Amino acid sequence: MTHSGTRLGELVDRFGGQLIGDPDRLVIGIAPLSDADERHATFLSNSKLRAQAESTLAAVLILTESDHLQLGAAFSGARIISAQPYVYFARAAQYFASLTAIVPPLGIHPSASVSPHALVAASASIAAQVVIEAEAVIGENVVIGAGSVIGRGVSIDADTQLHANVTIYDYCVIGKRCNIHSGAVIGADGFGFANDAGKWIKIPQTGRVLIGDDVDIGANTSIDRGALADTIIEEGVKLDNQIQIGHNCQIGAHTAMAGCVGVAGSAKIGKHCTFGGAAMVLGHLSIADHVHISSASMVSRSIHEAGQYTGFYPLAKNAEWEKSAAIVRNLTSMREKIRTLEKTIKLLTEKAEK
Amino acid sequence: MTHSGTRLGELVDRFGGQLIGDPDRLVIGIAPLSDADERHATFLSNSKLRAQAESTLAAVLILTESDHLQLGAAFSGARIISAQPYVYFARAAQYFASLTAIVPPLGIHPSASVSPHALVAASASIAAQVVIEAEAVIGENVVIGAGSVIGRGVSIDADTQLHANVTIYDYCVIGKRCNIHSGAVIGADGFGFANDAGKWIKIPQTGRVLIGDDVDIGANTSIDRGALADTIIEEGVKLDNQIQIGHNCQIGAHTAMAGCVGVAGSAKIGKHCTFGGAAMVLGHLSIADHVHISSASMVSRSIHEAGQYTGFYPLAKNAEWEKSAAIVRNLTSMREKIRTLEKTIKLLTEKAEK
Amino acid sequence: MTHSGTRLGELVDRFGGQLIGDPDRLVIGIAPLSDADERHATFLSNSKLRAQAESTLAAVLILTESDHLQLGAAFSGARIISAQPYVYFARAAQYFASLTAIVPPLGIHPSASVSPHALVAASASIAAQVVIEAEAVIGENVVIGAGSVIGRGVSIDADTQLHANVTIYDYCVIGKRCNIHSGAVIGADGFGFANDAGKWIKIPQTGRVLIGDDVDIGANTSIDRGALADTIIEEGVKLDNQIQIGHNCQIGAHTAMAGCVGVAGSAKIGKHCTFGGAAMVLGHLSIADHVHISSASMVSRSIHEAGQYTGFYPLAKNAEWEKSAAIVRNLTSMREKIRTLEKTIKLLTEKAEK
Repeated sequence: MTHSGTRLGELVDRFGGQLIGDPDRLVIGIAPLSDADERHATFLSNSKLRAQAESTLAAVLILTESDHLQLGAAFSGARIISAQPYVYFARAAQYFASLTAIVPPLGIHPSASVSPHALVAASASIAAQVVIEAEAVIGENVVIGAGSVIGRGVSIDADTQLHANVTIYDYCVIGKRCNIHSGAVIGADGFGFANDAGKWIKIPQTGRVLIGDDVDIGANTSIDRGALADTIIEEGVKLDNQIQIGHNCQIGAHTAMAGCVGVAGSAKIGKHCTFGGAAMVLGHLSIADHVHISSASMVSRSIHEAGQYTGFYPLAKNAEWEKSAAIVRNLTSMREKIRTLEKTIKLLTEKAEK
Repeated sequence: MTHSGTRLGELVDRFGGQLIGDPDRLVIGIAPLSDADERHATFLSNSKLRAQAESTLAAVLILTESDHLQLGAAFSGARIISAQPYVYFARAAQYFASLTAIVPPLGIHPSASVSPHALVAASASIAAQVVIEAEAVIGENVVIGAGSVIGRGVSIDADTQLHANVTIYDYCVIGKRCNIHSGAVIGADGFGFANDAGKWIKIPQTGRVLIGDDVDIGANTSIDRGALADTIIEEGVKLDNQIQIGHNCQIGAHTAMAGCVGVAGSAKIGKHCTFGGAAMVLGHLSIADHVHISSASMVSRSIHEAGQYTGFYPLAKNAEWEKSAAIVRNLTSMREKIRTLEKTIKLLTEKAEK
Repeated sequence: MTHSGTRLGELVDRFGGQLIGDPDRLVIGIAPLSDADERHATFLSNSKLRAQAESTLAAVLILTESDHLQLGAAFSGARIISAQPYVYFARAAQYFASLTAIVPPLGIHPSASVSPHALVAASASIAAQVVIEAEAVIGENVVIGAGSVIGRGVSIDADTQLHANVTIYDYCVIGKRCNIHSGAVIGADGFGFANDAGKWIKIPQTGRVLIGDDVDIGANTSIDRGALADTIIEEGVKLDNQIQIGHNCQIGAHTAMAGCVGVAGSAKIGKHCTFGGAAMVLGHLSIADHVHISSASMVSRSIHEAGQYTGFYPLAKNAEWEKSAAIVRNLTSMREKIRTLEKTIKLLTEKAEK
């Protein structure tokens, strides 16, 4: 599919900003400063790269008012003034990607196995080898990738996309405009057992997973169903790959988690939080809004105050780590030595002052 | 599906305990103290919640003899005395869940692809798009979820359930009453290579995975087949989601691992152990029975003594962590300073005593 | 399938080495010292096990010249002298495994759904329930396991094997002789969003994943497609299970990563590196060739020098950890105490010297 390009005038009509330059100039896409050529829009989201922006060949540069005023004359192309060039880039990139996107075929692939008791919107696209169980409701424009399995009574709201080989267990609810990647498993049993003289007795997991609108879920991520109540993922949450969310968790709106994060059961996480890769959260604790956890850090207590929190052992050459780890193992003895020193010095000082 | 309720008399017939109250009173389910109403049984598994128990509306309260004696008269419902109210809850919850469970359809879905050389019990349920290869043996009442793939010569014993999109590689053996969740992969090649002048030469992985009875395996968990010998998961083991078990591991009976745990190859783990989320175990080491590893902790040596073990860097506000981590990097210099102080003080003390 | 055995003469014809003994002696396989009997070849890859080698019943012992000279006369079987007995074992094991390997059936299983616009080599094997989208190109002798989904325009080169339930997204490129295990997801969207007043705006991920020749990818491992440029996995890379590779990463040739490793976006990792299990790498940093990261260690800065690096908190009994962790939290106060001591002692020393 080709397109002759988009007028700069159309870009500002769509995404706002003040255009300085020829509205009839055409661009075929948006690219970072380092890659853009005269067919592209580009953007300056970091003032430190201003020198690089001066020499870009791009047809138009999206930048802040402040950078615009300070940018030299070396850049002679058009400019779009925007308060948030990086957000502008994201929206423009979505637009250009949509121009060449392959539209999934409408309807149900003949190899799919769809229960006659499921309700599938005529505008939905159900790929090959998909399974949809009874009572499932598949909304308008929903796309379900090949090999995905949609359990009984599942509800998937409009404009949501499931990629290939996704699994949604019975009675889970997925909002609008969600994007769920391959290998994701939504609604498996939470990990709940009672110990009876050494043997584990399973506690049935009869809650659901409720996923709000505009949630993204990465590849091979798992979100368990609740034990009695539901596991809740609020609107706008973004989960990367290989994440584990335990039963009865609640993840607040617009919180984002990078790959390999684990959240144990019944944790309640606030809105607008971020979690670096492989951060871990113990169960039954709560985390306030606007908390940011660094990568590879372990949250073992509730956090009531917004801010950035970190806890990982600093990397070192192995031989150095061996030494520092040996000391860490014996920190109590080091503290003892310091206390002894303090006492001795106190005595010496008293003597000296006599 | 509805049911008119279960008599309290039937509950104690099924699960034991001493009933104090009307055996003909009906309950429709069991719920925690905080949620139960007059249609429910509830339970007191933690004496600290006794006050809450006094005011529950539940038809019957399951509690220990001791809590029964101390519970005030405010609670006027029936009581069931049990030594283990939480275990009683688990068993009763299983019973109530079974009353409303949807029974999977008997037989092989027409879209499944089952080798004519596989042996499938007539009481088994094989869902849509399943693949079963030759020589596989599927036992009585086994349920295989949609899209699952059962390799050649696999054996799955009676009453085991595989959810959707599970993969079992050739010749693996699964016991009775197991519960394997979506995305689980049993029997992929172990990670074994010989290094030949910088290039990795694959060592064929010709062992199997042997899984005992009553094993639960979570979503997206992987258990690798052995290199020559087998990987062994003993009876009653409970594995949560996103777990990695390397080749030739042996996991002792009734050991439980929370999400994101990793166990490297040839580790031998005892019985009745527990592993917190994201705990990691190096390869070729052994862990005794009744060892408990905390979340996010790294086991780098064998553990021969039962008990609780921990090792993660404590979380702090980022600025504080920056400071403590900088000191950890230089602990050897701190130790040097203390040694210097000790020497100097020894000299001073000797001088002072002269 | 049975075979009468392989002549030792044929072994050295195939894999080199100097045979001392009867070339017509037959072996049916290769086994480690501890398991080999008179039907097997075995190998001594660690001189410390020489005593064990003396008493092996194996038909032939593969060992270095040096071990050969020092091995006592107790071992009376044949010997093959090789500079690398462990590599010899790997190659011989591959050979013996190939003798009994089940050859997947040629052609496309009738239940597979293959686009008429895909190109599938006649020598390829496409299992049941597979989906192959338009414009995909499947090379000679490629094996695609049951339930796998191959996106539009994907290219899979000759002799590569995908096991069951693998997902390859549109336009990804897989090299020759790769081995990709179940649950692996290649080419899902990278985790890229711009934050607009608290809401996350998705940045389209329009790059691909390019995978070189001889790459192994473990079960449930995810490799994200690039945002604009491609994610690149160079030849000979070996990835274990449950690994997460972020968008735009580049993994250098012959680097190996054990299970549960996570690599954040845009990290550039050198050649011939190794990563222990659950090692983590932050994004946008680079790691030199021949760097070795220990298990459970977090790489938070670029590494420019080859060597072994480590960073995890040492495990201890929980009570001891509680104490050491409390001190780690207050290391700045400990440093303060030492500074105070140093000052006081300086004063005391000055006094004493007056």
